[in-house]
Amino acid sequence: MTASEETVQRAPALLETSDDIQRWLENTSRAERSRRVAALSKSQLAAFALLLSARSGPEVLRSVDADLAGKVLRAGAARYSARLLEAMDLDDAAEILRRMKEAQRSPLLDAVSPDYAQAVREMLDWPAESTAAHMIPDAFTVESEMTIAEAETAIRTQALRIRGKDRIGGLIYVTDADRCLVGVVETQDLILAQPDQHISDLMDQDLAWVSALVDAEESAQALADYDLPALPVVNEQRRLLGVLTADAAADILEEETTEDAERQGGSAPLEVPYLRAKPWLLWRKRIVWLLVLFVAEAYTGTVLRAFEDELEAVVALAFFIPLLIGTGGNTGTQITTTLVRAMATGQVTFRDMPRVLVKELSTGALIAVTMAAAAVVRSWTLGVGPEVTITVSLTVGAIVLWSAFVASILPPVLKKLKVDPAVVSAPMISTIVDGTGLIIYFMIAHATLSQLNGL
Amino acid sequence: MTASEETVQRAPALLETSDDIQRWLENTSRAERSRRVAALSKSQLAAFALLLSARSGPEVLRSVDADLAGKVLRAGAARYSARLLEAMDLDDAAEILRRMKEAQRSPLLDAVSPDYAQAVREMLDWPAESTAAHMIPDAFTVESEMTIAEAETAIRTQALRIRGKDRIGGLIYVTDADRCLVGVVETQDLILAQPDQHISDLMDQDLAWVSALVDAEESAQALADYDLPALPVVNEQRRLLGVLTADAAADILEEETTEDAERQGGSAPLEVPYLRAKPWLLWRKRIVWLLVLFVAEAYTGTVLRAFEDELEAVVALAFFIPLLIGTGGNTGTQITTTLVRAMATGQVTFRDMPRVLVKELSTGALIAVTMAAAAVVRSWTLGVGPEVTITVSLTVGAIVLWSAFVASILPPVLKKLKVDPAVVSAPMISTIVDGTGLIIYFMIAHATLSQLNGL
Repeated sequence: MTASEETVQRAPALLETSDDIQRWLENTSRAERSRRVAALSKSQLAAFALLLSARSGPEVLRSVDADLAGKVLRAGAARYSARLLEAMDLDDAAEILRRMKEAQRSPLLDAVSPDYAQAVREMLDWPAESTAAHMIPDAFTVESEMTIAEAETAIRTQALRIRGKDRIGGLIYVTDADRCLVGVVETQDLILAQPDQHISDLMDQDLAWVSALVDAEESAQALADYDLPALPVVNEQRRLLGVLTADAAADILEEETTEDAERQGGSAPLEVPYLRAKPWLLWRKRIVWLLVLFVAEAYTGTVLRAFEDELEAVVALAFFIPLLIGTGGNTGTQITTTLVRAMATGQVTFRDMPRVLVKELSTGALIAVTMAAAAVVRSWTLGVGPEVTITVSLTVGAIVLWSAFVASILPPVLKKLKVDPAVVSAPMISTIVDGTGLIIYFMIAHATLSQLNGL
Repeated sequence: MTASEETVQRAPALLETSDDIQRWLENTSRAERSRRVAALSKSQLAAFALLLSARSGPEVLRSVDADLAGKVLRAGAARYSARLLEAMDLDDAAEILRRMKEAQRSPLLDAVSPDYAQAVREMLDWPAESTAAHMIPDAFTVESEMTIAEAETAIRTQALRIRGKDRIGGLIYVTDADRCLVGVVETQDLILAQPDQHISDLMDQDLAWVSALVDAEESAQALADYDLPALPVVNEQRRLLGVLTADAAADILEEETTEDAERQGGSAPLEVPYLRAKPWLLWRKRIVWLLVLFVAEAYTGTVLRAFEDELEAVVALAFFIPLLIGTGGNTGTQITTTLVRAMATGQVTFRDMPRVLVKELSTGALIAVTMAAAAVVRSWTLGVGPEVTITVSLTVGAIVLWSAFVASILPPVLKKLKVDPAVVSAPMISTIVDGTGLIIYFMIAHATLSQLNGL
């Protein structure tokens, strides 16, 4: 998109000076940086780490994932890496350090300034899933009785201290003597105001805030829903602890969406970028669900063996097995993916279940009629005779409706049981419909096929 | 999360004054607002539209989807609705008007001020998918030779004019005499600077920008990747046209992720919020893919009929059909969902195909061995004898590898052909693997089962 991304990409192993790094950054997209850095050998990584400056280092570390950034930091000498770490915003630094073992983390934290180490340790004390763990633990603050001129002086002083000030989003929080949050003003409003006005004249008291221990994903979704540039994070006494920035929220949501997608595909979340996942890791993340589904699907074999006589009497029944259960799985998958996404964005909740059910069963009825007609055409082209044709088309209709019912109920019920509805994957819904669909098939066959009388 | 969301929700039909609306907004979550407004009858909607003020109106209209917002605007008298429209940021107004027919749009645009109408019409002239169609068509601008004091005066004047100034994100763009973009300064830096410094002392010339006609999704992803608060939009001469804000980018990405999820579930994107989709619409969005997949899946019937003699000779072979093709579909779905998501976030491109293939075939080999072992256990419990057991477990392994191969190749190839790889849905990959998997099954059966000799 910008000119930089069209430029030829270079391998970081060929870079020799800090200026080379700077140019490399300007000419390399983020995805490409990750890939290139991940490909470096241990000794190349150590050389690369030495070339990073206080300017280029944070940018490199922020453009790769936290695991890889940790590797870069550990590749360099602790004293040198500590300098890079200190040049980073606290939230970014904490995210990298959180993924290290204490033994890897300690040498780095021993080498940074005591203040910085203390601040990082406080960040690491928050539970990894909490909003506080993802905030910048600082903010521009003024008090409501200050004049604009006093406020500007206060902000100038704070600007020397606050890390990540350019990401806080132009918002200045108004606190009382106990540092409790009472309002917000925008930097732009300060510029537009007269110097003798007071903060209380400008401030907006009707602001959104979030408690430190609220799940980070929930806060990020709220920030996105309300189009906020940042969300102040407070403790139980409403004391201001820090700020969740819009870019941190976007990262949280992107990661959550990726995890949901992986769950929807019937796999456990990878937790590392795909290209960095080794086959063993992929195997581990995937095999559990595959085996669970295999065991569940195995019962289709039991069903089919139970109907062995029917299959021997009318072997044509077997021709339609993949088509019938496939259609059931497809119908169910369409519903669950739409529903799971609508639940992830907060559009649909458990309370909507009756509406969802009515909507999906009505749609299911329309689809059942259409698919039954398609099944008549298909049976006719296979030349299996009118009786099997009737069996197959009745079964398609029944399976479509059954599948719609299961698929509409499962995600909201799981959500209610505090299970992430994203685990209702396409493979799971297919597996559930496969076995039950076969039972429906043979029950209908018994009712419609004269050859099966007496079986 | 904030206290407001825990409060009891009230129906907007019971609201009687503008103050009621204000309180209702404070006490109702965004998803709930959408739901309540959507449930209003035509006459209730007209009454509701009349209660909206220049303050509450834009908030209500922004918290429901663009189609529904358009309905609200059309429900009120044109002159009244025009006032609400004029209170909105231009990008939000344009998004609503873009979805109306010209006959619905004209009365509204005739009733707003000529300047506003002109600005909206310019927005509507951009292609719907372009970045420019989603920008705020204005920005704070200063020139590099200005002093800080001069710049502040310029900004004060512009603040009276710029709609959406609180969303532009604290960035002030530096332009030359032709309004071409040459740099950027942050509002905070203005406050921190001395009044006699010049803009040229503060400005950062190394800034990202995007061309007006670039696909909006691409720009939004770039803004998110680089953690930018906003992205300036320029024409071919690098003249500044407006700003893509972070919240607009987040909306674009959320919508795109929803569309991808719907495609991944084997449905066409709904384009309206799920709860507002009527059964006929759902039917229309889903039936096309269902029929395509049905026709594709129908060929499993042809395969099975071709192997009718084998099925009659060893009816036990039929028991394993759903299990074998199900496992193939599951393996493929795991790969495509992970891969499609990695491609949507830009982590994986066509160039990575060889690496993806090596990774997936290695993982596939591990999975094939595990699943073959599971198949031995399952065959043994079904009591089908050693020959069928060998057939089934060899087939599981072969199908897993085949599925891994197809699933790794399809998304990057489609991307290369300019088809959205998200169309490689779970149902599609299952369907492809079903028919081909059956052929593999019977080929292996022929090689391993003595009963099939001579067939």
